[in-house]
Amino acid sequence: MSFNTFGHMLRMTTFGESHGVAIGCVLDGCPPGIPLTEADIQHHLDRRRPGQSRFTTQRREPDTVRILSGTFADERMSGPLTTGTPICLLIENVDRRSKDYADIRDKYRPGHADFTYLAKYGLRDYRGGGRSSARETASRVAAGAVARKIIPGVEIRGAVVQMGKHAIDREKFDWAQVDRNPLFCPDAEAAEKWADVLDATRKAGSSLGAVIEVVASGVPAGWGAPIYGKLDQDLASAMMSINAVKGVEIGAGFAAGALSGEENADEIRDGGNAPRFLSNKAGGILGGISSGQDIVVRFAVKPTSSILSPRRTVTTAGEETEIVTKGRHDPCVGIRAVPVGEAMMALVLADHFLRHRGQTGKSG
Amino acid sequence: MSFNTFGHMLRMTTFGESHGVAIGCVLDGCPPGIPLTEADIQHHLDRRRPGQSRFTTQRREPDTVRILSGTFADERMSGPLTTGTPICLLIENVDRRSKDYADIRDKYRPGHADFTYLAKYGLRDYRGGGRSSARETASRVAAGAVARKIIPGVEIRGAVVQMGKHAIDREKFDWAQVDRNPLFCPDAEAAEKWADVLDATRKAGSSLGAVIEVVASGVPAGWGAPIYGKLDQDLASAMMSINAVKGVEIGAGFAAGALSGEENADEIRDGGNAPRFLSNKAGGILGGISSGQDIVVRFAVKPTSSILSPRRTVTTAGEETEIVTKGRHDPCVGIRAVPVGEAMMALVLADHFLRHRGQTGKSG
Amino acid sequence: MSFNTFGHMLRMTTFGESHGVAIGCVLDGCPPGIPLTEADIQHHLDRRRPGQSRFTTQRREPDTVRILSGTFADERMSGPLTTGTPICLLIENVDRRSKDYADIRDKYRPGHADFTYLAKYGLRDYRGGGRSSARETASRVAAGAVARKIIPGVEIRGAVVQMGKHAIDREKFDWAQVDRNPLFCPDAEAAEKWADVLDATRKAGSSLGAVIEVVASGVPAGWGAPIYGKLDQDLASAMMSINAVKGVEIGAGFAAGALSGEENADEIRDGGNAPRFLSNKAGGILGGISSGQDIVVRFAVKPTSSILSPRRTVTTAGEETEIVTKGRHDPCVGIRAVPVGEAMMALVLADHFLRHRGQTGKSG
Amino acid sequence: MSFNTFGHMLRMTTFGESHGVAIGCVLDGCPPGIPLTEADIQHHLDRRRPGQSRFTTQRREPDTVRILSGTFADERMSGPLTTGTPICLLIENVDRRSKDYADIRDKYRPGHADFTYLAKYGLRDYRGGGRSSARETASRVAAGAVARKIIPGVEIRGAVVQMGKHAIDREKFDWAQVDRNPLFCPDAEAAEKWADVLDATRKAGSSLGAVIEVVASGVPAGWGAPIYGKLDQDLASAMMSINAVKGVEIGAGFAAGALSGEENADEIRDGGNAPRFLSNKAGGILGGISSGQDIVVRFAVKPTSSILSPRRTVTTAGEETEIVTKGRHDPCVGIRAVPVGEAMMALVLADHFLRHRGQTGKSG
Repeated sequence: MSFNTFGHMLRMTTFGESHGVAIGCVLDGCPPGIPLTEADIQHHLDRRRPGQSRFTTQRREPDTVRILSGTFADERMSGPLTTGTPICLLIENVDRRSKDYADIRDKYRPGHADFTYLAKYGLRDYRGGGRSSARETASRVAAGAVARKIIPGVEIRGAVVQMGKHAIDREKFDWAQVDRNPLFCPDAEAAEKWADVLDATRKAGSSLGAVIEVVASGVPAGWGAPIYGKLDQDLASAMMSINAVKGVEIGAGFAAGALSGEENADEIRDGGNAPRFLSNKAGGILGGISSGQDIVVRFAVKPTSSILSPRRTVTTAGEETEIVTKGRHDPCVGIRAVPVGEAMMALVLADHFLRHRGQTGKSG
Repeated sequence: MSFNTFGHMLRMTTFGESHGVAIGCVLDGCPPGIPLTEADIQHHLDRRRPGQSRFTTQRREPDTVRILSGTFADERMSGPLTTGTPICLLIENVDRRSKDYADIRDKYRPGHADFTYLAKYGLRDYRGGGRSSARETASRVAAGAVARKIIPGVEIRGAVVQMGKHAIDREKFDWAQVDRNPLFCPDAEAAEKWADVLDATRKAGSSLGAVIEVVASGVPAGWGAPIYGKLDQDLASAMMSINAVKGVEIGAGFAAGALSGEENADEIRDGGNAPRFLSNKAGGILGGISSGQDIVVRFAVKPTSSILSPRRTVTTAGEETEIVTKGRHDPCVGIRAVPVGEAMMALVLADHFLRHRGQTGKSG
Repeated sequence: MSFNTFGHMLRMTTFGESHGVAIGCVLDGCPPGIPLTEADIQHHLDRRRPGQSRFTTQRREPDTVRILSGTFADERMSGPLTTGTPICLLIENVDRRSKDYADIRDKYRPGHADFTYLAKYGLRDYRGGGRSSARETASRVAAGAVARKIIPGVEIRGAVVQMGKHAIDREKFDWAQVDRNPLFCPDAEAAEKWADVLDATRKAGSSLGAVIEVVASGVPAGWGAPIYGKLDQDLASAMMSINAVKGVEIGAGFAAGALSGEENADEIRDGGNAPRFLSNKAGGILGGISSGQDIVVRFAVKPTSSILSPRRTVTTAGEETEIVTKGRHDPCVGIRAVPVGEAMMALVLADHFLRHRGQTGKSG
Repeated sequence: MSFNTFGHMLRMTTFGESHGVAIGCVLDGCPPGIPLTEADIQHHLDRRRPGQSRFTTQRREPDTVRILSGTFADERMSGPLTTGTPICLLIENVDRRSKDYADIRDKYRPGHADFTYLAKYGLRDYRGGGRSSARETASRVAAGAVARKIIPGVEIRGAVVQMGKHAIDREKFDWAQVDRNPLFCPDAEAAEKWADVLDATRKAGSSLGAVIEVVASGVPAGWGAPIYGKLDQDLASAMMSINAVKGVEIGAGFAAGALSGEENADEIRDGGNAPRFLSNKAGGILGGISSGQDIVVRFAVKPTSSILSPRRTVTTAGEETEIVTKGRHDPCVGIRAVPVGEAMMALVLADHFLRHRGQTGKSG
């Protein structure tokens, strides 16, 4: 969890810029013996891939992943297995449109990292946002697909629960709806309304923020660790590292600030082999350690900073001017953040599973 | 940022249980040549110390810190300086009241980590919460006091901005008020109202959640790093690691989810040596790197789980029962979280300052 | 393995200076449920303790260890167990002789870190060598005692196999002899000769180097990891981190440089459940992973730099002068390096056991 | 320094197997603004490249490196500069000879990691040694080429100083000779003799061990850190991580074990701005910190395990048999270890330079 590496026992290191040769990652620490093909990963990448509906950027990237290392098969095996060595996943950048970058080269786009990269490094790859582009998250989704296979008993699902000012109706939350609309919305009615709102937003050259919820079911009690290895802490770190995320909460989250102790208590009854909690204000984590309940995380994504409405800014030389960010942008980057959030959840949980097994010897 | 160590170049490792011999920490990586005495640290510990008003636990802990290593003075020097070697800070546990722990030994307290520690480790030090007690945060405050001295140009301030359902009036926000009331409230009127609310809460044996805001001023542009070394990511990790925290947000935070791109854009004008931002929705961080604006973080603290109202639970043997948590508890743990949040901000910023200086050679 | 922390899953962080208040360490990542008392640790500390024979420094340090955290017992348990939380071990410095440090304060002692600490940090705690004193290794021995309990099936033994120019007779190697002489010598005849040599050395105010061998038996095949997590690599790091060590070798070591491929090959026969190697040139490690054979490490310790023979040096102001290092010094620091080398072996192996169990799920 | 990542501030993560699609690495933490082209790296790779003389394997690998990320140039710049983001270096495996691997698939080759990988992971990529092949070291050489550019004032040179039983004549040591013979031998006479010895070795189907020396000049005093961040410790770790290395020593190394304190002392005279040492038994490191003298490291490489002489072994099924390792092998892997050792020296020093600059603010 420093610089470009995430995780302690399962470690993902990503590389690559938006309009460079390729992006990708090295996933180190994966257990051996896990069946893994490119198709297993491609499935998840396709959920994040741009250009699949009118609600996402029209950049045409097939996002085809290649496994360069870390799996092995010979004619006596039924298919490739992980070998326990680093898995390098490579995604070539195909649609590097030859365009004029002069505008974003010489002006700071509000809400983007143009100025801060320059302040830190003295230079920057400005083509399509370079390293700060959300394109990097494709690597996370690829690595996350592997992480899921390390913890097969855990189901990880994500959804958009708020689009701009419009939240879903919690009564109508239905996971089955999520893949039936291009907005990852779990409320069929809301999905229709949001489509209209987004169309209007896109036509106005504007953009919208969103709130995403990711839930992991089937996590046994005991994963995580106290103090600075807390499961919720690592989830907060994971989600906040996603481009455009401005807030993360677990369980009741910020709403807990307004509760009384009585309201917030998740009372307990006997559940047979384990305690049965009567509510889940805790979001499945107590003292940084999983309780066996669903792990519930939400994060807020700011509206896409690249909009057609002119905004005031300065040039790198300090001259005051305006900027209009043309090009191919998502009117709501929160939508494609859903598979990314799921991937980060998978990476955190798989890492903690290995850490837990290492320290305690428990595999459940 | 794993297990009981926090930070990459400036690394704090804490140890100790609530009712053990002592708690403390080792702070490694501190630059040499910084004047440091126990009084420098004690000042900050005293702000977190319990028993100072009727709004905090009545446990009597002087929280006297001793520096066991890492500083040096001889008769030719005007006072102790850090030597660049590990600074061990020790705080003895004095008020280990001899009491009957049978109730919390044998029952799971809702909202506490009793069950999850047991599920993970197979045993637990249940005395006063053991390792999961918020007492651990005294070590953070001590280390944070050292961290502040590493970045003397940065001012770090915290305040409670919401107590239960009662938020401050942002128009009346005044940092000068924070130390004039025992609630770290920056709004003098709100402070009075909150005192009444808290009195009622305490008498009812109940508790309240809160939201804390921590602001760092004077951070130059360029600290932080992209992708998994993001400043906001490490702040999210830092704040979420504090006991009872359920949510963290930067700048506009969750509110950004409801904004349009136009509303969220921090427009820019020429500021002489650097861009001047016309607003701070970003909370001082773009692409994980500081922009030179104030760094603004808020976190939500759940209500104290130890309350006098009986709650349903089970025993460790699985029998259904109720529990009433007597003892000495804060009616709102959010209050004493203020100096802890400040300390974590200081630790994150000092770590990133050293990392930035290492990679880029820039000291500003 | 950075700065003052060693290990990845089992992490030891040490602190303290030779003549400060105390030295000690925090051992993080220890599995829960392991019986541990101060006596378990004291036993090993006593083997390293100074002042036990005329061949070691006469500094009078009882080296009494206190466990400040990380274990727990109540009246229902038969004794304290580790809880999985950080174990802080504290050793107070008792014999801080009030002496005149002016000589070592103002002159660089050849072979010591006086100049380099000053070059790095701009100041240094020169009292008894401060942080660079071999006194720090007491913390390692204490932590190593805990590490041994994590891997109870592994036996770790160390011995001095060369004292100055005098090597043992390998034919007479007998582990049982090691604790029967104050020189940790496994060859009874050599031990007597060495005693004479050391007496002469001590009387001459001189000192001698040594070579130490540490052997771990009972390590199952499979511990370690390829590339940068190699078992031999971590052992090299561990041993080279001990004060005064100038070389480390595994198995045949430097002698392998003079061998042919035929001579170096450890041929293999069937051993029932596992291969049976006909020799152990490899020192029990192949490709960074244990083979099930004994792990064999040797390291060279330079002669004590503090000698009574005057050596040329300069003052911190650059004036040319001479220095004679009086005080209480070991004529051969290699002797007391034996328990330290054993401790480092234990720490590396326990760390790798946990890492192996985490990644592969195997406990053997 | 764990698993497949090396370094703390400058972190190299390698991936890839000998006969997989490609090998490569991600170098993270590189300072921005350093001119870097593929040619800068290729130069060093070519020194390690196989098939350049009759003394190295005849595998035909061009080892052409591609920079996939982390540098940037536009038409206003004179050439590509590092951007401070991860540098991915990719080397395709070209000569993956279609051969029958049945022999090494089913038998354990003595001296190789066949058995240990299988014991750890339960499966292995046996083609050409898979991950355990020395082919991985090409990635190190590539990353090391970048590391050298981070510390331009430091000159790093390596040489073979012993081939089998034949050591160089130290009186004839001449760095200028190293690149004039295919054996990296600094003694012109020895080079001729060694060529004959190697020819005989190769024809006999045998192999030889070697000792390599790597020297870094121009390292300022102050790099490194005490205790577990020692420069010599990290060098020991670095060199021991190279395939086939069985021993590492610094300065006088193992010979120091046979010295007296007087002999070992590097006496000091005034050198103007800094102390001038009259000898370099310490190998340029005191207390883990550089002294300003040359850093001198030696490591022993065992003879190539793949030889034509039949050796006894067992099959994976436990049947006793013999093995002859045909194929393309170096008669002395120590030769090509020279550029690898140089690269590891560069990586360790560049990492420590960044760490030193981070903690102390000193750039020299």
